[in-house]
Amino acid sequence: MSNPIITLTTDYGTGDHLAGVLKGVILRILPNATVVDISHNVVSMDLLDGALTIGSAYRYFPPRTVHVVVVDPGVGTARRPIIVSGDEHFFVAPDNGVLSLVYDREPSAHVRHITAEHYFLSPVSGTFHGRDIFAPVAAWLAKTYQTEVFGDEITDFVRFTLPRPKPAGTALKGVVLRVDAFGNLMTNLMAEDVPAVMASSGKIKLQIGNTRVERLAQTFAQGAAGEPIALVGSSGYIEVALNRGHAARTLGAGRGTEVTLELA
Amino acid sequence: MSNPIITLTTDYGTGDHLAGVLKGVILRILPNATVVDISHNVVSMDLLDGALTIGSAYRYFPPRTVHVVVVDPGVGTARRPIIVSGDEHFFVAPDNGVLSLVYDREPSAHVRHITAEHYFLSPVSGTFHGRDIFAPVAAWLAKTYQTEVFGDEITDFVRFTLPRPKPAGTALKGVVLRVDAFGNLMTNLMAEDVPAVMASSGKIKLQIGNTRVERLAQTFAQGAAGEPIALVGSSGYIEVALNRGHAARTLGAGRGTEVTLELA
Amino acid sequence: MSNPIITLTTDYGTGDHLAGVLKGVILRILPNATVVDISHNVVSMDLLDGALTIGSAYRYFPPRTVHVVVVDPGVGTARRPIIVSGDEHFFVAPDNGVLSLVYDREPSAHVRHITAEHYFLSPVSGTFHGRDIFAPVAAWLAKTYQTEVFGDEITDFVRFTLPRPKPAGTALKGVVLRVDAFGNLMTNLMAEDVPAVMASSGKIKLQIGNTRVERLAQTFAQGAAGEPIALVGSSGYIEVALNRGHAARTLGAGRGTEVTLELA
Repeated sequence: MSNPIITLTTDYGTGDHLAGVLKGVILRILPNATVVDISHNVVSMDLLDGALTIGSAYRYFPPRTVHVVVVDPGVGTARRPIIVSGDEHFFVAPDNGVLSLVYDREPSAHVRHITAEHYFLSPVSGTFHGRDIFAPVAAWLAKTYQTEVFGDEITDFVRFTLPRPKPAGTALKGVVLRVDAFGNLMTNLMAEDVPAVMASSGKIKLQIGNTRVERLAQTFAQGAAGEPIALVGSSGYIEVALNRGHAARTLGAGRGTEVTLELA
Repeated sequence: MSNPIITLTTDYGTGDHLAGVLKGVILRILPNATVVDISHNVVSMDLLDGALTIGSAYRYFPPRTVHVVVVDPGVGTARRPIIVSGDEHFFVAPDNGVLSLVYDREPSAHVRHITAEHYFLSPVSGTFHGRDIFAPVAAWLAKTYQTEVFGDEITDFVRFTLPRPKPAGTALKGVVLRVDAFGNLMTNLMAEDVPAVMASSGKIKLQIGNTRVERLAQTFAQGAAGEPIALVGSSGYIEVALNRGHAARTLGAGRGTEVTLELA
Repeated sequence: MSNPIITLTTDYGTGDHLAGVLKGVILRILPNATVVDISHNVVSMDLLDGALTIGSAYRYFPPRTVHVVVVDPGVGTARRPIIVSGDEHFFVAPDNGVLSLVYDREPSAHVRHITAEHYFLSPVSGTFHGRDIFAPVAAWLAKTYQTEVFGDEITDFVRFTLPRPKPAGTALKGVVLRVDAFGNLMTNLMAEDVPAVMASSGKIKLQIGNTRVERLAQTFAQGAAGEPIALVGSSGYIEVALNRGHAARTLGAGRGTEVTLELA
């Protein structure tokens, strides 16, 4: 029997005690847990960024992993704490849409409103539910994987849809969703949005801000020095990158920058 | 039997090998240890920031956790390495006051000067006692939890007191101790410093730099757009925050900024 | 029996899902692995910085640790994935020189070209071999420590030599290799480059940018306020530091800054 695995995805940063406290709370309840940091640097209070982070990571973990996701601008309000059971994974999070990509990928997921307060730390603060609710519930859940003891199933959970590209004449207008550590610009255009003829020719007409991108590459290294390229990133989204460069800085683009893909 | 838990709190950053080396040293001595990062981003050489980090985190970990705390501007000098045994936890650190908050919360703690050099890596460098002294001692300690083999008890250990608010006419003058990842300004005023009538009314008169704060809220979300609010943070200190905003940047405040709480 | 240990050294940053995905892939194959972050903040695509990080850290880990090192500007090209077996440790990395310091320290290391694709995730992307190749190979390797099943031995692996100081008249000209979290400037001069008479006197003539350094100290604390000092850092390289200060910022020096050590 291997140890239960609990992952953490938060916007707490790593500059103070917050992330460490979550780990302590979990280990106090379940000392043999394997606690894994996915990221504590989700953009502060940014539900889309949190949704992309957990949505891109969770499937790679073993079955029965419990994922704690805390991006929680409404902490202390009436927004509900929830447990989600997907096909193989469990999630503990605030009901604010931060699990939206999980719902997209786990259509038969069950969502429960956590109401069993005896699993919480007491008293529950108005500002740190990661410590008082989400971490302890995750640890108790990873003892038995019985979700029904935590509260009743709900169907009116909060869910948003990722911004989808919009047709505009002969083009598709999308947007940059995030920038990675290398400066690569991940857009909301997907591999299947690129017409097959372009995909196979490796030629593309993509406008990002003031920059024209003309090559759809397979690897970063196919880009010539200073040439912006597009490629299908590892999560299936079209990215704009510079071989050995930092596309975001060089192109002056970032989250929210418009991208236009010519389809004709 | 669960694995021994050893936490790390340092100012080493995560940009090079230093934090990784501590983990290696521990695992080489005690391969089944669970090594947990609390933070490696304590403000560089800042004993108060280190004291706040470990002081706010340690109690959430299981009994018998060994906490390694390395903020150590005097590395290589005559300042002593120490082991502290509290009611439930152990600490390994330089004797420079970085455990001051631990002493406050563990009045019957025992402090020992670590002199048993056969537990150190050899030779001991003049610049990296985290690797050569603190990590190996923590790992050896977590094998048996016998502290007396490491050295004699001392009572003249270094201890500082947190800056406390000072009365000033009808007010109390405090200071911002730290800023978290959300920009919330944690002060040295505590919940019990607020007169009961204010606490229950939710009205407060607090001046921070040039900004007047008039609401004592329960949660961040109670703040109107752009309205600075005060609340009792998760560690018991009064914080100044902006709902969905970054108070430190918006108010131009930060560590050391003065705060004045009207009591009348 | 303790759990197999797998370390991670990458330039992925911690702002998105990339580092978390590596951990998931490993744990899915080997749920009882102890996965240890050395650093995810290697300077982006910088092979020298990656080589220094893993080269300075690996020896402190227990025998049979598997080190995953991913700094991989050539991801998706013909550059080979390799497994290196040293005296006590294993390494999984791209064949681009990022293990050069390991080769220096492990002269009898064996290097294999990983060709056994059934250990890879499928399909293999063109942009994320950490996920698709290096992490799964590390996990499979840590099950049996049999390297020969992954591919044939090679001898033409890529290896660079660290920039070495060059004689210049009566002096030795070196360079700053990296800056740590404290602002200390690590040069490529080594303890043994300093003439014995200087080393024992504690007097040195070292020029770094526009700054003259005259003291070779044992500890940071020996520096007077504002006095730049040299010392032998914990990895054996000469560092320039400011006691309780940030040498890089104060001296306006950084990676690539020239250093001249007078030998006469």
